[in-house]
Amino acid sequence: MNMEKIMEELIVQNNSKIVMVVMDGLGDIPHKDFDNKTPLEYASTPNLDHIVRESVCGRHIPVFPGITPGSGPGHLGIFGYDPIACTIGRGVLETVGLGVELKHGDVAARCNFATLDAEGVITDRRAGRIATEENRRLCDILRQIKEIDDVEIIIEPGKGHRFVVVFRGQNLNPAVRDTDPQHEGQAPLKAEAVREEAEYTAEIVNRFIDRATGLIKDEHPANGILMRGFSSRPRIPTFKEKYKLEAAAIAAYPMYRGIADLMGMTLLPAPDTIEGLFRTYVQYRNKYDFFFIHVKGTDQAGEDGDFAAKVGVIEKVDRALPVLMDKRPSVLAVTGDHSSPCPLRSHSWHPVPVMVHSEFCGADNTTRFTENQCNSGGLGFFESKYLMPILMANARRMDKYGA
Amino acid sequence: MNMEKIMEELIVQNNSKIVMVVMDGLGDIPHKDFDNKTPLEYASTPNLDHIVRESVCGRHIPVFPGITPGSGPGHLGIFGYDPIACTIGRGVLETVGLGVELKHGDVAARCNFATLDAEGVITDRRAGRIATEENRRLCDILRQIKEIDDVEIIIEPGKGHRFVVVFRGQNLNPAVRDTDPQHEGQAPLKAEAVREEAEYTAEIVNRFIDRATGLIKDEHPANGILMRGFSSRPRIPTFKEKYKLEAAAIAAYPMYRGIADLMGMTLLPAPDTIEGLFRTYVQYRNKYDFFFIHVKGTDQAGEDGDFAAKVGVIEKVDRALPVLMDKRPSVLAVTGDHSSPCPLRSHSWHPVPVMVHSEFCGADNTTRFTENQCNSGGLGFFESKYLMPILMANARRMDKYGA
Repeated sequence: MNMEKIMEELIVQNNSKIVMVVMDGLGDIPHKDFDNKTPLEYASTPNLDHIVRESVCGRHIPVFPGITPGSGPGHLGIFGYDPIACTIGRGVLETVGLGVELKHGDVAARCNFATLDAEGVITDRRAGRIATEENRRLCDILRQIKEIDDVEIIIEPGKGHRFVVVFRGQNLNPAVRDTDPQHEGQAPLKAEAVREEAEYTAEIVNRFIDRATGLIKDEHPANGILMRGFSSRPRIPTFKEKYKLEAAAIAAYPMYRGIADLMGMTLLPAPDTIEGLFRTYVQYRNKYDFFFIHVKGTDQAGEDGDFAAKVGVIEKVDRALPVLMDKRPSVLAVTGDHSSPCPLRSHSWHPVPVMVHSEFCGADNTTRFTENQCNSGGLGFFESKYLMPILMANARRMDKYGA
Repeated sequence: MNMEKIMEELIVQNNSKIVMVVMDGLGDIPHKDFDNKTPLEYASTPNLDHIVRESVCGRHIPVFPGITPGSGPGHLGIFGYDPIACTIGRGVLETVGLGVELKHGDVAARCNFATLDAEGVITDRRAGRIATEENRRLCDILRQIKEIDDVEIIIEPGKGHRFVVVFRGQNLNPAVRDTDPQHEGQAPLKAEAVREEAEYTAEIVNRFIDRATGLIKDEHPANGILMRGFSSRPRIPTFKEKYKLEAAAIAAYPMYRGIADLMGMTLLPAPDTIEGLFRTYVQYRNKYDFFFIHVKGTDQAGEDGDFAAKVGVIEKVDRALPVLMDKRPSVLAVTGDHSSPCPLRSHSWHPVPVMVHSEFCGADNTTRFTENQCNSGGLGFFESKYLMPILMANARRMDKYGA
């Protein structure tokens, strides 16, 4: 009997409201140019300082100690899906990240425009990182391919040399090997089925590649394509199925809207200020049980190595907090999906600070919501997938286990 | 290779004495009427304060974060049995809780007296929560059914409308579905075998129900019975098998005596004062290796929401502690089986404080045995099932793993 089964049997419904504010990439490490403080330590956060005294804190670990998660595993974890057992394919993540709708049974791939020589050998896997406008122009050319043998072809440009292709039709299967050999100096691979059920899909993919290459063979420098991460929308239980929660997402970026959609959340309007995100919660409070509010700026600042910008986003969240707390949720969690320390300019393996506020949370001695204070909080260190059980318990939405 | 197998290979024997004082439902959360303190923080505990400075502390999690355990999973955990893999059936727990001996192969069910209308439809699943004396009178009537087809029938009244029935005989199997439909407005269900091996048992159960209903059909309001939680004594290794420990329980309440009995502990006299419990340990110290001392009052106070009473029980334990420490065990653990916070008046999901005292425990900086100080103790947060390995290690009863 695993965690999911146990949860399923214990869940009860009530009128509680759960809000999870996810400051993307929130966790950080001390920065020598800023008094050896982390952005959370450096920021002025009077509202968080007030709430944290009535909260219980801890640090969560997205996959296992030492593992740096991508956005997929990071969000799977905080939503209570085991990020090892349950994966979101790269094609799927890239596709939903571009705001393209994915239906069950579609097969999505993330693609590169590449440069091939006269013999068809790859000389640049990224076609000299062409500009996004050039990418758009090329995708428009490829869009002449509307379908192959009744399989609809959907093409969407991303940034630089990246785009996605979605195959929509009957009997498709994502078990197809990458055509990107990951090395220059060799030709792109043929799409090959890993399992028999995917042979038809591999054939369609190869026919697509032939036609696409024919259409752009005289372009320069992007005269070829590489495809990888073939995947389909995962068949994972929705929030309604898993937690009996009507869940809504307030997220501006397509990637996070896409992830929320995979989990069956309703996508609510997401204005471009943090106060606006919180106002959406207030407006829809009565219609949903669970609100995922996604703040992107912290991760962006972390990846840019911009300490001051990260501090600024944290302070904006703090200043907007009274809007949210005016319609106080039964349970409020403030956390991130992973750490993105400014000195690293990337996602990292560091445990993520989390605070949980509710009437019965059992406040600890934490006086500020910082990485170091969270280390001795009342939640301890725990795998991210346990955050949802903790929030459900605080919302009194779980029965006792065993007599 | 799992925890049990690894432990088994490493265990050695010596003359050490391990004492585990379980203050039932010990963990708590701050109470606003008591300086925002928990009972452990509020209580005056000079003896614990002294010992804790030579101890290592932490918090244990009975099942996984967010899960509120019943007494069964709670005690399984602290005794090193995985509370997910190993369950004690509700019928069994209710039966041992009433002090009824259960043999291997017996099938036990927890039962309700209920009210049925003229068509046999349930109008009250609890027969208006009849008085315990009425329950006793009805059970005496049912005791006319002494056996069915060589299967002995044992009946024991509980509180209010609740009683247990134990079926004792050959070839019995507990895989029988509840006859309680959990709803009024329909007839009780027939007992049905979930597996073929239980078909004979289901037949005996149905014959019992027919005869029982015949005997009380003219009673009022309790003229029917509902049965659920069919289960048998779990086949779990005893403390002797698992840890090579001669174990004894000093517990006054039938439920905990019953659980201890399931684990092969000898039941020692349990006087009704805490000092008395500790004196039993002193008296039997030479005869056993492991002593489980169960203090019920903390849980009772927590479930009653009586903060002062919980503080009182903690202070009584503290005052009696010199009796125990006068015959100092090699390893002393003080903990609970779960939390029962006064503000919640029930079991809860909050991690349980624990302190472990031994010569080589590696004392941490904890100066008082409280939830918050335990948060940063040297044991960290850990699943309850690891408490026994920790105690065995402190007792020097485990070899090195691997070369």
